Amino acid sequence: MDIARAIADLQSSLGQRITLSKSDLALHGQSESHFPPSPPDAVAYPETTAEVAEIVTLCARHRVPVVAWGTGTSLEGQAQAFRGGIVVDFSRMNAVLDVATADMTARVQPGLTRQALNDALRATGLFFPVDPGANASLGGMASTRASGTTAVRYGTMRDNVLALEVVTAKGEVIRTGTGARKSSSGYDLTGLFVGAEGTLGLITELTLRLSGQPEAISAAVCAFDSVADAVATVIDTIQCGIPIARIELMDTESVRAVNAHAKMTLPEKPHLLLEFHGTPASTAEQAESFGALAREHKGSDFDWATQTEARTALWAMRHNAYYAILGQRPGARAIVTDICVPISKLAEAIEETRADLDQAGVMGPILGHVGDGNFHAVLLIDPDNPDELTAAKAASDRMVTRALALGGTATGEHGIGVGKLDYMQREHGGGWALMGALKHALDPLNILNPGKLVPPRN
Amino acid sequence: MDIARAIADLQSSLGQRITLSKSDLALHGQSESHFPPSPPDAVAYPETTAEVAEIVTLCARHRVPVVAWGTGTSLEGQAQAFRGGIVVDFSRMNAVLDVATADMTARVQPGLTRQALNDALRATGLFFPVDPGANASLGGMASTRASGTTAVRYGTMRDNVLALEVVTAKGEVIRTGTGARKSSSGYDLTGLFVGAEGTLGLITELTLRLSGQPEAISAAVCAFDSVADAVATVIDTIQCGIPIARIELMDTESVRAVNAHAKMTLPEKPHLLLEFHGTPASTAEQAESFGALAREHKGSDFDWATQTEARTALWAMRHNAYYAILGQRPGARAIVTDICVPISKLAEAIEETRADLDQAGVMGPILGHVGDGNFHAVLLIDPDNPDELTAAKAASDRMVTRALALGGTATGEHGIGVGKLDYMQREHGGGWALMGALKHALDPLNILNPGKLVPPRN
Repeated sequence: MDIARAIADLQSSLGQRITLSKSDLALHGQSESHFPPSPPDAVAYPETTAEVAEIVTLCARHRVPVVAWGTGTSLEGQAQAFRGGIVVDFSRMNAVLDVATADMTARVQPGLTRQALNDALRATGLFFPVDPGANASLGGMASTRASGTTAVRYGTMRDNVLALEVVTAKGEVIRTGTGARKSSSGYDLTGLFVGAEGTLGLITELTLRLSGQPEAISAAVCAFDSVADAVATVIDTIQCGIPIARIELMDTESVRAVNAHAKMTLPEKPHLLLEFHGTPASTAEQAESFGALAREHKGSDFDWATQTEARTALWAMRHNAYYAILGQRPGARAIVTDICVPISKLAEAIEETRADLDQAGVMGPILGHVGDGNFHAVLLIDPDNPDELTAAKAASDRMVTRALALGGTATGEHGIGVGKLDYMQREHGGGWALMGALKHALDPLNILNPGKLVPPRN
Repeated sequence: MDIARAIADLQSSLGQRITLSKSDLALHGQSESHFPPSPPDAVAYPETTAEVAEIVTLCARHRVPVVAWGTGTSLEGQAQAFRGGIVVDFSRMNAVLDVATADMTARVQPGLTRQALNDALRATGLFFPVDPGANASLGGMASTRASGTTAVRYGTMRDNVLALEVVTAKGEVIRTGTGARKSSSGYDLTGLFVGAEGTLGLITELTLRLSGQPEAISAAVCAFDSVADAVATVIDTIQCGIPIARIELMDTESVRAVNAHAKMTLPEKPHLLLEFHGTPASTAEQAESFGALAREHKGSDFDWATQTEARTALWAMRHNAYYAILGQRPGARAIVTDICVPISKLAEAIEETRADLDQAGVMGPILGHVGDGNFHAVLLIDPDNPDELTAAKAASDRMVTRALALGGTATGEHGIGVGKLDYMQREHGGGWALMGALKHALDPLNILNPGKLVPPRN
């Protein structure tokens, strides 16, 4: 790798839009998680696909790593340049290029955030449903195959990215997918780049599937005596085909945290948070059907919030749960676990996790997207106490082991990066080597986000 | 390629379950489409994954092509061994291995047909929704990324295959995906094998997503003055978020054919065939909403069929439309086209196709899964008249050219095989070479269904 020549070449291409400033490097060396800071050698701010292609071409010539950066909210170190090189910050490529209302699609640049997209869509009657909590960039969300609270109804990024423009490791610009809703035309390249964490190419444009803004939305909270009762209600809800838009679990510890943080007075029990989308009649019918199922599992009576304000408060509480939990232990940092299991194993997985964390003395409220079988324990550690980091990592490791034993996955929505690399062989067996072969075929010089996701090559 | 030694080795492994019988070879050399017969050198009937792995290992050793065979219903020559070699007939691997009702999944072998699966699911309250018309094998449906009438509501095979067991080109057995509903763990290998037409590996087991049998189903037909009116109604229906389960178009020529074949008396106009799934209340609400939209576009009043018998007759008519159309010209063979366009371009694509076929004198009723923007013209040709084949191929070629110009795809659901190979470069540009690189990485000897889908290597 010849970083000095790469930077010199990039400077003649990009001028001021490649920076070596200490503060900029430091900012792009951090993550929201517990990984050590790792500043890149330079940060590039391209404004066009052609510039991204030029950056990759120059980096290929000088064998310099290229790491894509959206908003820096990934949780497994995906956007950190642990091997140095150039971070490509997409913040200047954040335009809505086109909204096709009849086709219910939007063409956007990768640096656009999901909230900015939804702001732009407000008047169209359409919205982009994937909601991972953070106001992440859409390129980043695609690259980690993000999902969140609405996946049970609207799917993940896998389901909502229809087409891409990608700069390959050679600096070539290709398009995957078409404007059609479906296709049987060859390998699903769109699906291959979604979730590839920038290791196969850099996404420079996305065509996203939009959904109609529901005519009516209602939301509610419902308390249960146990996680098992709550999860049994979730299973019944899905089996009955109730098209629930969100169904989120907060365990007792999480409820305690949001009560403290948002000055709420929820009973200190496991809760489901619900949202229904539809017509006024169909949401009322859904609510009634859900209520009957909840009662069978000793769920509390629940208040419906059909007013926007009350709903907003409810989901703000859920979205801020991460910060509420952090607030439970001032000065703490979080390790956010992210397992996903078959829904029939969900109660077991959550209850065993709770018992395990309690026994290990690791503070870790649990919440999750239970309609998908996906949940998180937010493990709180004192960053100055290495023993706590060790204990939390060990607990996280046992969670993954449990998930895999139950037929699940090490990560439902946060991705691999470097944080989950150690589980790839166990989860995928021979499939992981196959991923390595695909990576080698598309990035033989190993310049695209090296050291992430696939088997280490050197 | 040393086919004699490969067959000798396979005979010592499989005994009677590898056959060279003329009739068996002839049967496995045919397709439902216009491609010339192309018998393989032998047909193998494995009963276990280990036997499939053994077959591929031996074929790799002797450089012999391996072509997977389900029910032989693919339409672009996907299962024909144009380069000879071994056809692997999966008809003896047709078991339902497991149905997990709480998880709403089924593990099945690839030779199982979709109707056999649904028969086995009858008492569970669940069903497998993907319905391409033919009673295809589920391995074949996955391999061509099949869809059909229900994709508008339930998605295609891409959306309904959760995990796979695959024998790779080396004869290694790998598993892709897990029992979890979603995952961010690495490249989407499941999605890569779905739609790969057996060119990257042989599917030996599938985990499928099931849906709940709807409590209430209702169906209807609605006539329109023009295709444009029908399609405008479709667009409005989808934009309003009516969760329609099927929405099929038959043009005037198709209606004429089904009238003749099924002794129906539909008015000779474009029709939409509809099905709604839900509760009694929600299907009634959906019907009412749809009715209002149809009236805005001068749709006819329509009869609802909530009784099973009437619905069955309606969909039998649709499913038999292909044969009804064939019946319009005794002795004819069909070339079934399969383009898919952005829904905003659908009326334009259909109307231009109609005018083009009329002008070219090619008989070709049009029908389609219009909720997805996907439609077929069934081009009827005299198999003994090469001029007609030439004219039909030319018309089909113009349809694809039109689809690509409108931002669509050369195939919505039938796949590439050899029939659509010539369009891959035009549709995918540099992406096609990238598909070739993936193929080369996973099948360096080019033994898996060679000559299909990817750029020819020799």
